[in-house]
Amino acid sequence: MKTGPTTRTVLRVRYGETDQMGIVYYANYLTWFEVARTEWLRALGWTYKEMEAHGSRLPVIEAFCRYRQSARYDDELEIRTTGELLSPVRVRFTYELLRVADGATAAEGHTVHAATDAAGRPRKLPERVRALFS
Amino acid sequence: MKTGPTTRTVLRVRYGETDQMGIVYYANYLTWFEVARTEWLRALGWTYKEMEAHGSRLPVIEAFCRYRQSARYDDELEIRTTGELLSPVRVRFTYELLRVADGATAAEGHTVHAATDAAGRPRKLPERVRALFS
Amino acid sequence: MKTGPTTRTVLRVRYGETDQMGIVYYANYLTWFEVARTEWLRALGWTYKEMEAHGSRLPVIEAFCRYRQSARYDDELEIRTTGELLSPVRVRFTYELLRVADGATAAEGHTVHAATDAAGRPRKLPERVRALFS
Amino acid sequence: MKTGPTTRTVLRVRYGETDQMGIVYYANYLTWFEVARTEWLRALGWTYKEMEAHGSRLPVIEAFCRYRQSARYDDELEIRTTGELLSPVRVRFTYELLRVADGATAAEGHTVHAATDAAGRPRKLPERVRALFS
Repeated sequence: MKTGPTTRTVLRVRYGETDQMGIVYYANYLTWFEVARTEWLRALGWTYKEMEAHGSRLPVIEAFCRYRQSARYDDELEIRTTGELLSPVRVRFTYELLRVADGATAAEGHTVHAATDAAGRPRKLPERVRALFS
Repeated sequence: MKTGPTTRTVLRVRYGETDQMGIVYYANYLTWFEVARTEWLRALGWTYKEMEAHGSRLPVIEAFCRYRQSARYDDELEIRTTGELLSPVRVRFTYELLRVADGATAAEGHTVHAATDAAGRPRKLPERVRALFS
Repeated sequence: MKTGPTTRTVLRVRYGETDQMGIVYYANYLTWFEVARTEWLRALGWTYKEMEAHGSRLPVIEAFCRYRQSARYDDELEIRTTGELLSPVRVRFTYELLRVADGATAAEGHTVHAATDAAGRPRKLPERVRALFS
Repeated sequence: MKTGPTTRTVLRVRYGETDQMGIVYYANYLTWFEVARTEWLRALGWTYKEMEAHGSRLPVIEAFCRYRQSARYDDELEIRTTGELLSPVRVRFTYELLRVADGATAAEGHTVHAATDAAGRPRKLPERVRALFS
């Protein structure tokens, strides 16, 4: 496994992301993980959109989240995202979500992705992505 | 304008569809409208999935919803859906949402759709769909 | 009707907001409208979160959207939001969504809100909000 | 650990649950897990809604999903849900999602829940729920 850079992105909780318990509905953390890995690639000089235009996809094959302190409506959250190259056709992102106001860890998680072509067939990660890992 | 059949479908409110006000988040009604028009076509003998496979799309160009009585978690809702053919390239669906428990109207709304091909170019509604309107 | 200020907010389309047509799923525009009116109030010196803490709610009683040019994954969108005071217990927000890249109008819409207390009973809009309209 | 019953529920994939890859967006599987555990409790004679009315909550503290075969728009999916009592204040649900058409496993996963009162303080699972585990 080769570890890549860690980047940070900040987002704010939307009203529609809460549920009647008064906290964020748990599935929405996975949506934020997606925002975070999109911004990870952008921060490193490419975009997922361009990567798709070059014929590569990174469908999720595994997702995990541990929920610690509740995130609530209008909270600002910082997500620290680290990429890890598991193999030429597998990449993992790990995420740490912090509440900006008090620094508490709201959640931690990871996603594992298979590199494929547009038809879903296995395909090596683009060289431009693999070069980000040392 | 030619009016088509009215069909009924029932769904149950999911926890994740509520927000911290304790009622259903307003955007989710549009998702239910989508379920309702999918079931409208199925009840009439075709499916939207097959229609897409034949190269037609019905992107939404206008949506409206009036919210009356709140829908809440675990409520059963009946949606009454009517299709209306506005022109060979325009169709409108109107929706009435009722709470099954008490018959109250939770919401009313409509969507207008443009018929297109897979690339988004205008295209007449399939004959099989137009035949549903008298 | 008294017209209030117009504010602007920018957001970026998330992958999960698209659907298999390759464009943004139509219900998500209403979620963006919610982000836009949250930012409208913040730009004017209060927050919706604090307003709720003071016992006021603004549930949506009507929503409308006209879809013009498609919004796509990773697009930056600017939302121009204007508040209008319809009565001491009714407020309307109108929205214009522009694609930042080319200035095209992606959508236009509005929402109407009833002012209520935490239990959903009618209640005048807080003076602090009414003061924003001239 | 005490194992409880396994129940089955069927749902159909909504258009808005897909993304531009043409398959279901990964966060939506967690929403289906929620539907499945709601139906688990209903099948066993109580409802989560009533349980909340009695002052108990089951917030998610951990979620996991492994994605196997893609789920697509309009697919019917069967979810097999098993409850496991980890302790008087912890319950786990495991899920297996099958495509009804071909029996393929679309995904497997689990969620872990903490039993709390309405204010989020730890609280034993209601006796009526614990009695479901042998």
